[in-house]
Amino acid sequence: MRKKKAVVLLSGGLDSTTTLYLAQHKGYRCYCLIFDYGQRHKREIQSAVKIAKLSNCEYKIIKFSLPWAMKSSLISKKIPIPDRDITEKSNATIPSTYVPARNTIFLSFAASYAESINAGTIFIGANAVDFSGYPDCRPTYFSAFNRLIKVGTKRGAEGKRIKAVAPLLNKSKAEIVALAYKLGVPLELTWSCYEGGKKPCRRCDSCKLREKGFKEAKMRDPLVYTPKLKK
Amino acid sequence: MRKKKAVVLLSGGLDSTTTLYLAQHKGYRCYCLIFDYGQRHKREIQSAVKIAKLSNCEYKIIKFSLPWAMKSSLISKKIPIPDRDITEKSNATIPSTYVPARNTIFLSFAASYAESINAGTIFIGANAVDFSGYPDCRPTYFSAFNRLIKVGTKRGAEGKRIKAVAPLLNKSKAEIVALAYKLGVPLELTWSCYEGGKKPCRRCDSCKLREKGFKEAKMRDPLVYTPKLKK
Repeated sequence: MRKKKAVVLLSGGLDSTTTLYLAQHKGYRCYCLIFDYGQRHKREIQSAVKIAKLSNCEYKIIKFSLPWAMKSSLISKKIPIPDRDITEKSNATIPSTYVPARNTIFLSFAASYAESINAGTIFIGANAVDFSGYPDCRPTYFSAFNRLIKVGTKRGAEGKRIKAVAPLLNKSKAEIVALAYKLGVPLELTWSCYEGGKKPCRRCDSCKLREKGFKEAKMRDPLVYTPKLKK
Repeated sequence: MRKKKAVVLLSGGLDSTTTLYLAQHKGYRCYCLIFDYGQRHKREIQSAVKIAKLSNCEYKIIKFSLPWAMKSSLISKKIPIPDRDITEKSNATIPSTYVPARNTIFLSFAASYAESINAGTIFIGANAVDFSGYPDCRPTYFSAFNRLIKVGTKRGAEGKRIKAVAPLLNKSKAEIVALAYKLGVPLELTWSCYEGGKKPCRRCDSCKLREKGFKEAKMRDPLVYTPKLKK
């Protein structure tokens, strides 16, 4: 039997990589979509490519710039990445790392890719529990997007399935870490830090949420704790 | 009083140019968004730039490729542009010029641009009367898109206006031509033909719809009929 096809938005981070492995585990033949949009942490692109190759997936890298988004600290290096308390309800405010309409742009490309290869499903690793409060990560957003592609694509207009799913949406970061281990996700290849330096900064939202996840899951993050090998 | 800002999707064709002039006529300060996505009729980009400059608008050109869309005759030169009867209900079928999820991609970038410059309105020249039957040109599609950006942007989540409007949606091509004349649209600078040659091919849907519009409006298209100047 031929495998069902899916497009997977792959940033190279913990969530999207776990989503890719989950989609493969569910029997999908995955086509990864990677974006080079001028993000500060360009390093995640290399991670994504390595992960796509390791998991034997076709992948496409789509490059574009968002010249108007220089107010986002995820794009402009002139704006510092915020160092804030993620344990409080700080996610009630949207931080400067927000890139206007980013997931909508990503998902639009994914819908175009999906329709072109006759894939009915788009996987996205969005999470609305341990997240930064971005509006385009909430459940209501995904319902609205699915309505849009149902009416706005040829595939959808013909009554065929075309749907974005976010299987990690309601999971805590600890649950995601546990799932990643279960699925054999190559955690050492993933990259979450917004700074994109040589080592995770452990100060940005993304590092803190990841660290909290590993701690609560009682696991060690191979990116942060590298065991020294004895000679 | 400061003018309200709007982002205008400008392809350089008759409809989008008329939409730009209409938005300016309505008092908006317009920011044009032009796409270079590998379209066969690359010539339209030059038209769009000339029109944006002539109308004193800021503009951005966003470049990307859709490597999976080579089945679309609007992108692949290996596939002929269809020559079909537009007077019949041929628009019940979606032609090969359809580019998967194209308007969704365009509008996503527009939403990102609009949010970044605090513009509440996005103008798009889509038309659902004399059109090629694309699913992403229908009224139901725009309602779905507006729902999406209302919930999926910071601006929308804060209760501020962010909305795509398509003022030509229910107009016939003849009405659009008449409106273009009324608004002083530089019709000689616009470009509609999908082939992108030196002269309009007069065989593609876009040429035929344009020709039908001028004929019914009892006007002459300066792109097709160039009056010879007497020496």
